[in-house]
Amino acid sequence: MAKDKKSPRPKAETPKGFRDYFGTEVTERGDMLSKIAGVYHRYGFEALESSAVETVEALGKFLPDVDRPNEGVFAWQEAGDGPEAKPGDWLALRYDLTAPLARVYAQHRNDLPTPYRRFAMGPVWRNEKPGPGRFRQFYQCDADTVGTASPAADAEICAMLADCLEEVGIPRGDYLIRVNNRKVLNGVLEAMGVTDEGQAADVLRTIDKFDKVGEAGVRELLGKGRLDASGAYIDGVGLSEAQAEPVIAFLTSKGDSAAATLANLRAAVGGSAIGAEGVDELEQIADLLDAQGYAADRIVIDPSVVRGLGYYTGPVFEAELTFEILDEKGRKRQFGSVAGGGRYDDLVKRFTGQSVPATGVSIGVDRLLAALREKGRIGGDSHGPVVVTVMDRDRMGDYMTMVSEIRAAGIRAEVYLGNPKNFGNQLKYADKRNSPAAVIEGADEKARGVVQIKDLILGAQIAQNATLEEWKERPSQFEVPRGEMVAKLREILAGQG
Amino acid sequence: MAKDKKSPRPKAETPKGFRDYFGTEVTERGDMLSKIAGVYHRYGFEALESSAVETVEALGKFLPDVDRPNEGVFAWQEAGDGPEAKPGDWLALRYDLTAPLARVYAQHRNDLPTPYRRFAMGPVWRNEKPGPGRFRQFYQCDADTVGTASPAADAEICAMLADCLEEVGIPRGDYLIRVNNRKVLNGVLEAMGVTDEGQAADVLRTIDKFDKVGEAGVRELLGKGRLDASGAYIDGVGLSEAQAEPVIAFLTSKGDSAAATLANLRAAVGGSAIGAEGVDELEQIADLLDAQGYAADRIVIDPSVVRGLGYYTGPVFEAELTFEILDEKGRKRQFGSVAGGGRYDDLVKRFTGQSVPATGVSIGVDRLLAALREKGRIGGDSHGPVVVTVMDRDRMGDYMTMVSEIRAAGIRAEVYLGNPKNFGNQLKYADKRNSPAAVIEGADEKARGVVQIKDLILGAQIAQNATLEEWKERPSQFEVPRGEMVAKLREILAGQG
Repeated sequence: MAKDKKSPRPKAETPKGFRDYFGTEVTERGDMLSKIAGVYHRYGFEALESSAVETVEALGKFLPDVDRPNEGVFAWQEAGDGPEAKPGDWLALRYDLTAPLARVYAQHRNDLPTPYRRFAMGPVWRNEKPGPGRFRQFYQCDADTVGTASPAADAEICAMLADCLEEVGIPRGDYLIRVNNRKVLNGVLEAMGVTDEGQAADVLRTIDKFDKVGEAGVRELLGKGRLDASGAYIDGVGLSEAQAEPVIAFLTSKGDSAAATLANLRAAVGGSAIGAEGVDELEQIADLLDAQGYAADRIVIDPSVVRGLGYYTGPVFEAELTFEILDEKGRKRQFGSVAGGGRYDDLVKRFTGQSVPATGVSIGVDRLLAALREKGRIGGDSHGPVVVTVMDRDRMGDYMTMVSEIRAAGIRAEVYLGNPKNFGNQLKYADKRNSPAAVIEGADEKARGVVQIKDLILGAQIAQNATLEEWKERPSQFEVPRGEMVAKLREILAGQG
Repeated sequence: MAKDKKSPRPKAETPKGFRDYFGTEVTERGDMLSKIAGVYHRYGFEALESSAVETVEALGKFLPDVDRPNEGVFAWQEAGDGPEAKPGDWLALRYDLTAPLARVYAQHRNDLPTPYRRFAMGPVWRNEKPGPGRFRQFYQCDADTVGTASPAADAEICAMLADCLEEVGIPRGDYLIRVNNRKVLNGVLEAMGVTDEGQAADVLRTIDKFDKVGEAGVRELLGKGRLDASGAYIDGVGLSEAQAEPVIAFLTSKGDSAAATLANLRAAVGGSAIGAEGVDELEQIADLLDAQGYAADRIVIDPSVVRGLGYYTGPVFEAELTFEILDEKGRKRQFGSVAGGGRYDDLVKRFTGQSVPATGVSIGVDRLLAALREKGRIGGDSHGPVVVTVMDRDRMGDYMTMVSEIRAAGIRAEVYLGNPKNFGNQLKYADKRNSPAAVIEGADEKARGVVQIKDLILGAQIAQNATLEEWKERPSQFEVPRGEMVAKLREILAGQG
């Protein structure tokens, strides 16, 4: 295709499914990540920032017989070296922070301490169909402990997660961390006599629906099947009622205390060794958390947590916010999950052949920010900078000196740098910037050694509620000696809170 | 290609030209970015985080007749929708933060204030041949003011840059910001009678070598040509000596004061209108900076700064660190440039057809970090966490309680989570973590209500310098009542500084 000289103007748009973040959207997320990093660091975790780009081989999600490995990831092939070179490696953007951790640990394991506690925060990319609220680039914020199978590592992750939630502004009572264990489910399957992998997968898929269809629904789905709400008939797994009983016992085993729950679970796994191991792990986790004062109002053993049971191999954790919000239809519902994690074996086995156990958590930063906004704990009226207006463009030096003084006092401030001819435009600009105050020094003020300071927040309130007469008195504007400019600004800003 | 069941293990490696960052490498950069963000914010700049992925069309660096637009960027083509769909847009990773700013401003200009002051920090990607110290992913840290042609905006950027350097730990006297102006050079070219664009480009390429070959070398290159150090003959531009004179006058116009420099520049541009405009801008910038107290020990008009003159259209700035370091051959040299910027017209014209002037700066974060490390201002002995050792694996609850207490006192700490059988391994781990202290509570200590605390920093110093007899006395280990554990740790840590 030859270049068209009259090529149309390019569209100024992000690619589909991507977005930009402005001002407080960026700084509030940065503040949250920095608070979480502080907690992770205090727990002895080390920062890791791996490259955003990995070889597709290292990410390891793709089959060699797929022509182009872009299913789910953004991938491209390196150009080869030289004129007749073969094309190079396939590269891809990371789709999470766990696959890169596996590569980093395998690559640097001789230099890293074992166990290796690390945290990582940053964007990840998914090549998925974008939808409302679903973006193809988003933040993850993970902490993982690699190289130890000790349940103490799982307990530590749970305690640290609780500390993180409180640190960013979710008070105790507004969240609950629920802990389950995949090994207990494996024990339940053994107790049921389900040994066929396909049937085990069917059972797993069914209990994944426990949140939606409840105990009775799961009973039907484990047995003959079930008419769903739309009228469609969903085939069941085909277990007998007796066979299904241990799964139901597992899902509903939560008692009034950790001890009661654990006793119920021991009963559900019967004589299964793997099941008993899973219950023992949960008991150790409960005991360790208890020793540190993390009681059931913060972290609780709850076998009805099924999310992640298909992915993780041991303990599974999920943090939920328990307060209610109104959904888009005005109905009350719990805010729900903001973090999840668990134990996964064989993190680096693909690379080294050796099994390395690991456990970790991923905090959903964007969900957590949404929750804090919902509760009014961030994103209130955040003011812009004080604006020093320009009355006389030949005296920019004076205005720049004023703004320097204001900044030196720690107050965010700027000089108006647009065309100063129309003063109304300067005040419109200050309004768009959500400025708390404007400073005005015309020739008259200069001669008299004073400045005018407009309290723009108070001014806006008056403008909304006052008659024209009241407005004309301009009680939100103050004249002060030039030497008292900074002090008056401090006073006005303090009054605005 | 069918899937090979015995496919070899994947290599645990970053792609060529990419690297991982560990621990303090990550946190020191984060601290620096956060300090710079604080200065940018105080100056009224707003954070912007645009998506890392842009359409190739919006990045606008590539021709439509190039088969695959991966020259210099990492690019890939979106899959189309549906079974017989045509392939979709070409997407690419951003190669800097300015091209995305142009797209963002064009896309959101009706919602953004004008002028729009924004800062952005984050990784960018270049599809270039990697070399020693040259990476294909690196950080940029930019601030730009869009929508004003006022030299006050340029002066503000220079003052802010000086504040940023001091904020991150470069003291006054260790840096210098030099300011030049492309319009002055244009005036010089006019004064020389160089109107041919090709010849103007030749002159520009020549003065770009001023740093390397000096005044005499530039004279030769503007004239007949020059033998370079390797013995190769470099053709000259072919100007007469008289024609070359204004360029030389421009490059060597720096006087003892801003006034002297400006007078020299006025002479060099002769009657050129654009040249006079450029000198006027420099004068305004000098006056505004002077009014705010930024004297020539921080920011100086210096026409010998040629870097960026080919790219920018008005004022050009460069920040240099002026202290000397030893290069790889042990020779003293100045550290050199850590930031640069300038004014560029037509930021969004490609998108909207309208000219929008802008000016900005980009701080080379990695160079600046290297400079601070060189001066010993960061990256000293940063200690790891206190390690609570595990003497009795049945008492993990006790150890977790101890570590909770230590963390609650604001001290970074962790329990050893590896296999506790071999106590030597625990101390080796603490050593690898660069731990300041280890806490030990065996059965005997537990019975007596005490703990042992090892000062590992002092211990290491003794081990280096002491005889075995002295070492055996273990004066770096202290026994304290369990209740005084935290207080003793505080004391030891304070002593380590």
